[in-house]
Amino acid sequence: MTEKGEKTRGKILEESARVFVSKGFWATSISDILKASGVTKGNLYFHFSGKEELAMAVLAKEREDFMAFLDQALSSGTPGEALNNFFEQAYAKHQKTNFIGGCIFGNTALEASETSPLFAGLVTDVFSDWTAKIEGKIAQAQHHQEIRSDLSSAELATMIVATLEGGIMQTRLLKSEAPLRVCLQTLRTLLDMNLTPKKELN
Amino acid sequence: MTEKGEKTRGKILEESARVFVSKGFWATSISDILKASGVTKGNLYFHFSGKEELAMAVLAKEREDFMAFLDQALSSGTPGEALNNFFEQAYAKHQKTNFIGGCIFGNTALEASETSPLFAGLVTDVFSDWTAKIEGKIAQAQHHQEIRSDLSSAELATMIVATLEGGIMQTRLLKSEAPLRVCLQTLRTLLDMNLTPKKELN
Repeated sequence: MTEKGEKTRGKILEESARVFVSKGFWATSISDILKASGVTKGNLYFHFSGKEELAMAVLAKEREDFMAFLDQALSSGTPGEALNNFFEQAYAKHQKTNFIGGCIFGNTALEASETSPLFAGLVTDVFSDWTAKIEGKIAQAQHHQEIRSDLSSAELATMIVATLEGGIMQTRLLKSEAPLRVCLQTLRTLLDMNLTPKKELN
Repeated sequence: MTEKGEKTRGKILEESARVFVSKGFWATSISDILKASGVTKGNLYFHFSGKEELAMAVLAKEREDFMAFLDQALSSGTPGEALNNFFEQAYAKHQKTNFIGGCIFGNTALEASETSPLFAGLVTDVFSDWTAKIEGKIAQAQHHQEIRSDLSSAELATMIVATLEGGIMQTRLLKSEAPLRVCLQTLRTLLDMNLTPKKELN
């Protein structure tokens, strides 16, 4: 593909992600995407056969970005500091979008669980990889006695991912940062993440 | 309305709820609803002006049922036992549907947050009432020293509702009861709900 072609494709993916995440997959029309990305219909169909292929490409790109985000957020300091850093960066990530749109994987899970095995499969993999990364870091933090260890790392990881998804849902619905902030701060207390200084999320 | 008319209206609401919850509002067509409920198009339009009015009636009915469910689940025994009972009954409620469809309010939140102020308003009220009921019971349980009290009842209630919604999302996506079960059991441990016997959820 030419450099110009790559750039157009990237722009379509980026703008489509924004539209899908705020309107939802089913409610989004090809016209919505053309309007948001400013490309012609011919150009769009040169790159993607239709809405489904486009949505899969958007999800694949978002997945790649999210895994890179996780690896980066979980890489700093001790395991406990890394978890704390992940909480702070997850909050900042949603704050940057003004809490509009929520989480594309959570949204897709709810839209596709019973209707699109293709989308549901990709999103299942994302949640599974995300949970595994958190679980690994929790096991290390428990080993370092940085968080409580009376619950298994697998159980805590499942619960943390669920709490974040639910917190993002509430924050998006109420158009207020409070639910996600409260969820993250409460999780920190419940996990006894006491070794790192408890900075207030703001 | 005649008794027969009431019965038809009730049947449309019940079957529509099932379709909306599994396909989502936008992906559901009037034909889907006619097929599921077995009523004629004329009959449907006698009761509802269209999909939006029908969906609002479904949400209003589900809200009424859910509030009655909450009041009943939270009414037994000491405050700590009532919370425990709510956890068990919430799990049983989703187990009964084989974890298909998830939570109609969570689904609607994700579909409607940015696109339908009418739906979003109703769902906001549901989450607000739900959180307030849990918060009241937590405050009582803290007062009775049945759960930990180093976190405010408001914070814990927000987090519990978020964790349940996230757990239901995961359980629906993975078609496995594990995530919701793990979330509920982990919450019980984190809250120090130790005064009531810890029955395993199954």
